[in-house]
Amino acid sequence: MINAERFLADLHELRSFGAAGVGKGVVRPAYSDADVAARRWLATKFEAAGLRVAVDAMGNLFGIAQGPSVLMGSHSDSQPEGGWLDGALGVIAALEVARSCGGVSVVSFQDEEGRFGVTTGSAVWSGHLTLAEADLLKDHSGVALGAARLAVQGMVTGEVSPAQFSGFIELHIEQGPTLDTSGEQIGVVTDIVGIRDMKITFEGQQNHAGTTPMHLRRDAFQAVAAFNAELNERFRNVVTPSTVWTIGHLSLHPNASSIVPGKAVFSMQWRDGDAERLGRMETIIRDTAAEIAEARGMILNSGTMLGLEPVQMDAGLRGALERGAEAVAPGRWRKMPSGALHDATNVSRLMPVAMLFVPSIGGISHAFEEDTDETDLVAGVEVLAQAVAGLK
Amino acid sequence: MINAERFLADLHELRSFGAAGVGKGVVRPAYSDADVAARRWLATKFEAAGLRVAVDAMGNLFGIAQGPSVLMGSHSDSQPEGGWLDGALGVIAALEVARSCGGVSVVSFQDEEGRFGVTTGSAVWSGHLTLAEADLLKDHSGVALGAARLAVQGMVTGEVSPAQFSGFIELHIEQGPTLDTSGEQIGVVTDIVGIRDMKITFEGQQNHAGTTPMHLRRDAFQAVAAFNAELNERFRNVVTPSTVWTIGHLSLHPNASSIVPGKAVFSMQWRDGDAERLGRMETIIRDTAAEIAEARGMILNSGTMLGLEPVQMDAGLRGALERGAEAVAPGRWRKMPSGALHDATNVSRLMPVAMLFVPSIGGISHAFEEDTDETDLVAGVEVLAQAVAGLK
Repeated sequence: MINAERFLADLHELRSFGAAGVGKGVVRPAYSDADVAARRWLATKFEAAGLRVAVDAMGNLFGIAQGPSVLMGSHSDSQPEGGWLDGALGVIAALEVARSCGGVSVVSFQDEEGRFGVTTGSAVWSGHLTLAEADLLKDHSGVALGAARLAVQGMVTGEVSPAQFSGFIELHIEQGPTLDTSGEQIGVVTDIVGIRDMKITFEGQQNHAGTTPMHLRRDAFQAVAAFNAELNERFRNVVTPSTVWTIGHLSLHPNASSIVPGKAVFSMQWRDGDAERLGRMETIIRDTAAEIAEARGMILNSGTMLGLEPVQMDAGLRGALERGAEAVAPGRWRKMPSGALHDATNVSRLMPVAMLFVPSIGGISHAFEEDTDETDLVAGVEVLAQAVAGLK
Repeated sequence: MINAERFLADLHELRSFGAAGVGKGVVRPAYSDADVAARRWLATKFEAAGLRVAVDAMGNLFGIAQGPSVLMGSHSDSQPEGGWLDGALGVIAALEVARSCGGVSVVSFQDEEGRFGVTTGSAVWSGHLTLAEADLLKDHSGVALGAARLAVQGMVTGEVSPAQFSGFIELHIEQGPTLDTSGEQIGVVTDIVGIRDMKITFEGQQNHAGTTPMHLRRDAFQAVAAFNAELNERFRNVVTPSTVWTIGHLSLHPNASSIVPGKAVFSMQWRDGDAERLGRMETIIRDTAAEIAEARGMILNSGTMLGLEPVQMDAGLRGALERGAEAVAPGRWRKMPSGALHDATNVSRLMPVAMLFVPSIGGISHAFEEDTDETDLVAGVEVLAQAVAGLK
C-alpha cells in the first residue's frame, strides 16, 4: 500500500534541515532559518502530492486534500538539541499516507517543542490561546513570538478551518522505554495523561549545624524527605503501573553544609490518564504535606496548581488503529497511555483524535541520540494506512 | 570581686565600633576601619589596666601581665552582620578579670569569623598556618589577607611568645539553645566537637518525567531521600544527644519539574566530641551510600572528607571553672560540649585550654538580634574570676 523507500528517503531528507552534525541529531527550533527552510521544502512536497498548501498566521503548515478528509501529522520544529524523529516522523508518515491512500490531509504544527510556551502552534489553531496572547510570549533570550513569526510571514495564506477534517491521527515516537523494553513494534494510545504540577514550600528554622541539637531542629530538608517517603507509601494503593510522580526540582535555603536548612521549595508533579485518580492523588499530597508540616513545625505553602486534563482517544479512530496494528504487527503491539503531551491534546478540542507510537531505542528522546529501527518506522506508517483504509 | 558596672559599660562601648544601627548589632569584619578602631580602643584599655600591649603581624592584640599568667580572651572582629557579644564578650570579660584579679593576660584574636578562612588569627599564632600561607587567602571580593592586614601595620610590635602563658580560658556566648531552653546560666565546656564534612554524589539517569515508568527510573533525588532515611535509622544506636548530623546543601540536576533528576550532589556533615564515634559514623555513611547506590543503580562518588579533630578541655582549668560555676550559679550550670569551633581549638596546640558558655536568648547568633541577659553576662565574668582565684 505505501512506498517505504520513498517515505524513508523523505524522512532522511528532512533531517538535513538543521542537521546537528552529531549522529542524526537536528537543531530546528520554531521559526529558526532551518525550521522555515524545512517548512518551505515540506510545502513543495505537499503540492507534489496534490495537496493544497495552507499556512496560518502562526506558521502551522497544512497540505489539504479535496473534500472532507482525515487530518494527520505532527510537528517539524525540534528541541534546541533534538532528535530526527520527534515530530518529523508524524509529518512525513502523514505525507506518505496521503500520497498512497487519498482522503488524507497533512499538518506540521509550529512550536510544539515550546520555544515560546507549550505546543504553541496547535494551541492557537485550536483556540486554546489567541494569536494576540501568543504574540506576547517570549523565548529564553527575550524574543517575542510576535517578532519571531515574521520569519514565516511570506508563506501565510490565512486561517485554516478545522470543519473540513473528520478527525486527527498523530504518529509519534514513544519517547519512553515501554515498547523498546517489551520488544513490541506498535503502541495504540488509549489516552494522553493529565498533569498536575505544584510548587510546595516548607519553611522551618535556619540554624547553626554545630550548635543546634537534633531534637530542637526544624530542618526543611528533613521535612521534604519525610514527605517524600510518606507519599510513596500512601500512593501504593491508589496508583496504577502507568501512574508517575516526580520531585524534579528542589532548592534549599541557604544551601550551605554548616547550616540547618530553614526553607525548602520543591516541585511536585504527577500524571495519570484518569482525572479522578489525579484528584485522589492531590488530596493525598495536600494531606501529607499538611501533616508533615504540623509534625515538624513547618510553615506550609502550596503554590498554584497547574492542571492539564487527561484526553481520551476517540473510540472509532482508536479501533481503526488497533485493527491496523493487529494486521501489521500481530501480537507485537499494545494499548498504552501517552505520558508526554502532544499536539493531539489541543486538537481534541476541535475533533476526534487518536495517536500511534513506535518504539524509541533505549527510551531516549530530546537528544541527538534519539532513534528507532527503520522497520518499526515503516510499520507505523503501514498501520496508519491500514487505519485510513478501514475508516473508508 | 569584679566590677559589673565597669564591665558592662566597656562591653556596650565596644559595640559603638561598627554599630549596625539595628538593635545591638555590629558590622566589624576583620581589618575593617571599625575593627581597627576597636583594637586601638582596646589597646588603650589594656594599657590603663596596667597590661603591656603587644600586637603580632596578623593583628592579634594582647594585653600582657607581668610574669607568668593565664591568657584569657576571644576575638573582637564580627560577622558581616554580627551580634554584639560573639567574641566581644570574651575579650571584655578577660579585661575585667585582669583588672580585678591580676595574673591574667588578655587577647583579642583576629579574623575568628573567617573573612579569610576559619579562625585565621589564632591559626597563625598557634602555628597551624604560616603567615605566608595566610597572606594568600582571599575574601569573597578577592582581597588578599596580606593586603588587608596593612590596616593594622602601625600597631604591630612583633611576635608574641606563648611560653609566658600557663593556659587559655575563653568565655563565649553559647550560640545555641541549650542553656536558654533549660533556664541555666552557665555551661562549662567539656570538649569542642570534631567535624567531618564530605560531598556525596549520586548519579542515576536523567529522564522524561512523563514517559518513564516508576519501576524503570534511576532517580537521584529518591536515592538521596532513601539514603537520608536509612542513615537516620542506623545512627540511632551510635549517637548521643549531643551528636549532630546535617544535609545542608543539595543540588539536583537538571532541577526541573518535568525531568527525573539524573544527578544529586549533597553535603554530609557530622559533629561529635568523640573521635572514635566520628569514625563509626563515617563507616555507616559510606556503607549506607554504597548500599543505596547499588540498590538503585547509582554511580556513587564521595569527595574528599574535611576533618577537624575534637579537642578535650584541660581537666585542671575545667575543674576550676566548674567550682566557679557552682559558687556563682549553684544548680544552674551544666557541663556541655561546644558544637561550634572557637579560637580555643587552635590555642590547644600550645597550652591547656578551657571554655565557658553563657546563654544565647533563643539560641540566636550571627545575627543583629543576638543577645544575652546582662545578669548572665555578669555571672560569666564572676565564674572566670572565681576560677582564676581558685588556680592561684
